[in-house]
Amino acid sequence: MSDHPDKERLVFFISDRTGITAETIGHTLITQFPGIRFIQRTYPFVNTLEKARSTAKRINNAGKQHGIRPVIFNTILDDDLKDVIASAEGMHLDFFDMFLVPLENELGCHSSHKSGLSHGIADEEQYMDRIEALNFSLTNDDGVITSKYPNADVILVGPSRSGKTPSCLYLALSHGINAANYPLADADLEADRLPQSLRRYRKKLLGLTISADRLHNIRQKRRPGSNYASLKQCQREIEIAEEIYRNESIPIIDTSHMSIEEIATTIMQHVRHNKS
Amino acid sequence: MSDHPDKERLVFFISDRTGITAETIGHTLITQFPGIRFIQRTYPFVNTLEKARSTAKRINNAGKQHGIRPVIFNTILDDDLKDVIASAEGMHLDFFDMFLVPLENELGCHSSHKSGLSHGIADEEQYMDRIEALNFSLTNDDGVITSKYPNADVILVGPSRSGKTPSCLYLALSHGINAANYPLADADLEADRLPQSLRRYRKKLLGLTISADRLHNIRQKRRPGSNYASLKQCQREIEIAEEIYRNESIPIIDTSHMSIEEIATTIMQHVRHNKS
Repeated sequence: MSDHPDKERLVFFISDRTGITAETIGHTLITQFPGIRFIQRTYPFVNTLEKARSTAKRINNAGKQHGIRPVIFNTILDDDLKDVIASAEGMHLDFFDMFLVPLENELGCHSSHKSGLSHGIADEEQYMDRIEALNFSLTNDDGVITSKYPNADVILVGPSRSGKTPSCLYLALSHGINAANYPLADADLEADRLPQSLRRYRKKLLGLTISADRLHNIRQKRRPGSNYASLKQCQREIEIAEEIYRNESIPIIDTSHMSIEEIATTIMQHVRHNKS
Repeated sequence: MSDHPDKERLVFFISDRTGITAETIGHTLITQFPGIRFIQRTYPFVNTLEKARSTAKRINNAGKQHGIRPVIFNTILDDDLKDVIASAEGMHLDFFDMFLVPLENELGCHSSHKSGLSHGIADEEQYMDRIEALNFSLTNDDGVITSKYPNADVILVGPSRSGKTPSCLYLALSHGINAANYPLADADLEADRLPQSLRRYRKKLLGLTISADRLHNIRQKRRPGSNYASLKQCQREIEIAEEIYRNESIPIIDTSHMSIEEIATTIMQHVRHNKS
C-alpha cells in the first residue's frame, strides 16, 4: 500500500431514515484510519426520488470540489432510491447489499425491505418503556427520594461527578432500564457506612469509583478552586466510597477511562446477570 | 426460498468493546425479518483469549440446545480473538472483514486495528462536551431560568409531554448539543403569544407538536382521569401552541409518529442548517 495515503477524505452517510446505522458503521470504520482527516456529512430522510437526486448531486459537487472521490455509506432500502445514490461518483459501501442477501439465504426467507424499523417508533410499547425509564431516572437522580427504589433495575452509588447521572440517562434512553442514582454525600461519607435507606436494596447497588486526578479535573470545571474540587477532598471521598463498597460487597466500576457507553455496557452486564 | 422459514433464531452480538456497533448493525438487519423471532444475546468486552474461548463455548452450547445454527455478528478486531470466535458453529457475519479490506484499498493505507475507538473515551474533549451538554439540558429543562439561552444551540418549545425532554437529553448524549427546553405553560397559552423571554432567541426555537390523541394517551399514563390528560385540554393546548408557532414563523416538528432518534435527527438538520 502507498506510503503517502490521502490526508483528507469526504465521507457521506446516506439514509432514508435517521442515518444512525449509517453513521455508527461509518464512524466505527473511519476511526480505524487515524492518519486521515475525514470530512463527514450525514443526509438523513432521503426517502423520495427528488431528495435522492439532490443528494447525488451534492455528493458529485462536493467530490469535484474536493478533488478526491468520496466514500459513501448507504443504508437505503428502496431499490429505486438506491439506484439514484449509486449513480453518484464515489466509493459505495451499501450496507444492506452486503448483509441482507447472505442473511436471506441463511434464514430461508426474504427480508421485508421496510425502512425505519430499527430506529423508528415501530415498537410503541418499547418506546414508552424508554420514556418511562427516562422519567424514572430523572426523578430518582439525587438520592432524596428512595421510595421508588423497589422499581429500580439498578441503583448507582458514588461520589458527586463519578459518572452516575449520564450513565443512568443513557441506560434509560438506550435500554429502557430503570436506573436510580444515589450520590454519597458528606453525611454518608462521615458515617463511613452505607446509608440505612440503601441497605435493603444491596443486590441492586453498583459502586462507581474514579481516579482522584480525573475527578479533580472534572470538578475543577464545575467549581474551580473550591474545596469540593480540591485533589485532597476528591482523594478522601473516593477512599471512603471504595471502603464502603468493599465492606458491603458492592461490585465496583472504575469509570476513570471509560466512556458513557462503556460504563452503561458494564452496568448492563451486571443487570443481566442479576436477572438471570 | 422456503415457504416455511425458521420461526426462531439465536443471534449473538460479539464485541471486544461495548458491542454497540454489533448490536446496531444486527438489530437493523434482523428487523428486516419480522416473521422470525430472534433470541438476542450480546457478549461485550470479549478482549482476552480466555473470554473468547468461553464465548465460543456458550455459542456452541446454545446452538446445540436450540437445534438450529445461530447467527453471529462480530466486531472483534484482533485476529487471534477472531479466530477463536470463528471456530464456533454458526453463520458468521464479520463486520470488519467485510468492510475494512475494501476501505483499505480505497484509502490506500492500512487500518490501525485498534479497538474501542468508536464508543470509547478516545477523544476526551468530545467526551467532556457531551457531559457539559447533558448538564446544560438538565439545568435548562423547565423554562424557569432563561439566562443561559445565549449558550443554547437549540431551544425546544411545546406543550407538556410533546417530547421535549427526551429529545434534549438524547441530543446532548449523542451529539454534544446544548438543547434547552421551554414548556408552554398555562400562562403562555392563555396569553396566546410567545413568552417575552423567548422572543430574542426566535432563531433558535423549534416548536414541537403532537396529535391530540397521542398526547392524551401519554398524559393518561401520568395522571389518569385528570383535566391535564383530558382530550379536550390536549386539543386546546396543541391548537394554541401551533397558532403561536405559525404567527412567529417557528419551524414545527410533529412528533406523533416519531421516535426520539427521529425527532433528534430532524432537530439536528435544523441546527446544522442554522450554523451553515
